[in-house]
Amino acid sequence: MSDPAKAAGTPRGRFITLEGGEGAGKSTQQKKLADWLSQKGVGVIETREPGGSPGAEQIRNLLVTGAAGRWDAMTETLLHFAARRDHVVATIEPALARGAWVVCDRFADSTMAYQGFGHQLGRPPVETLARLVLGGLKPDLTLMLDLPVEEGLDRARARNGGATEAEDRYESMEIAFHERLREGFHEIAAREPERCLLVDASGTAEVVSEKIQQAVVERFGAFLL
Amino acid sequence: MSDPAKAAGTPRGRFITLEGGEGAGKSTQQKKLADWLSQKGVGVIETREPGGSPGAEQIRNLLVTGAAGRWDAMTETLLHFAARRDHVVATIEPALARGAWVVCDRFADSTMAYQGFGHQLGRPPVETLARLVLGGLKPDLTLMLDLPVEEGLDRARARNGGATEAEDRYESMEIAFHERLREGFHEIAAREPERCLLVDASGTAEVVSEKIQQAVVERFGAFLL
Repeated sequence: MSDPAKAAGTPRGRFITLEGGEGAGKSTQQKKLADWLSQKGVGVIETREPGGSPGAEQIRNLLVTGAAGRWDAMTETLLHFAARRDHVVATIEPALARGAWVVCDRFADSTMAYQGFGHQLGRPPVETLARLVLGGLKPDLTLMLDLPVEEGLDRARARNGGATEAEDRYESMEIAFHERLREGFHEIAAREPERCLLVDASGTAEVVSEKIQQAVVERFGAFLL
Repeated sequence: MSDPAKAAGTPRGRFITLEGGEGAGKSTQQKKLADWLSQKGVGVIETREPGGSPGAEQIRNLLVTGAAGRWDAMTETLLHFAARRDHVVATIEPALARGAWVVCDRFADSTMAYQGFGHQLGRPPVETLARLVLGGLKPDLTLMLDLPVEEGLDRARARNGGATEAEDRYESMEIAFHERLREGFHEIAAREPERCLLVDASGTAEVVSEKIQQAVVERFGAFLL
């Protein structure tokens, strides 16, 4: 039997990203979305940033270990884009090319929100890097899980051992940082309404998951129903 | 006694970089230049890239270990600029600000020559990154040690244990790579003749060293005589 993924003319997969602040439920929703797509017969990979390829995971180690302020915002941004480039080249593009859908926990919008807005590096350098490093690659759909800052932080703190090192680092930042972060995600969503959907993440995981499935059907078609 | 380095109005130090292909004698000349400047009473630090600060040395490890083709040219360029940013913030700028002269083995021109020309990433992305990451910082003087490719490689191979891991990686590249590298340094020197001096590195270390001292005197003044 021939491998349909290798046949000429295999349609390119879809690239879906989940974004949001701490405690918004990205990893829970990533798993639910990937499972649901699989049940519909869609080939899907789950991946995350920073990381997602062997090289990018090594760069991730530089970002999530050591003192919290060890890199300035620009250096941190460059490390994120170096990891992202490797992730795209080694994992994301090959998957999309063979027709798989990619569901990714964080992508370039997180760098804009965390470094551009949170650490106040500003929008232009992050935009310049995204153009330079990613060329035309953008997610086909970005689901931004939105939650009031205090609610997200309470949820993140209540997690039992589920927090990553990176998230721990950010949970300890001042509230104003998290407010800027949320403002960043809102601004990205407002500037790219075709790509981005702000999802109210304050309901139960099931309620949020249904909203996400509905958005995916609206974007990619009724074959998913 | 007050520390003159901390006094208001301390003149900013000078930033001198040494560039060149494999076997050109950069580290020998760096040491000779730093020693000579010290003898003239100039406070000087010697540093090198990739590396030169604790964070940048960790990024260097990602660049000089593992399989030679593990990063694509863009990822490699981003890692070099991340390391450079940290090196500038943690080592170079503080030294210049306190009035020390900085003599650095490789800087941004190496990224242009190796990744831009050698790996054929092209000039524009490296220029864009240099502007974005370094702002206005450029060396006050760049000494480009120039040698025919075969001669440089012969010298590099003859070194007894003096080669760095990074140099070992590059020595094994095809000759055409080294020719593009040399062409890259020549083009940089031609575009920025005020900053860059191409130094014929085919003589003895003493002959080359005298040319370099002469260039430094011409650039920075007779107080060094």
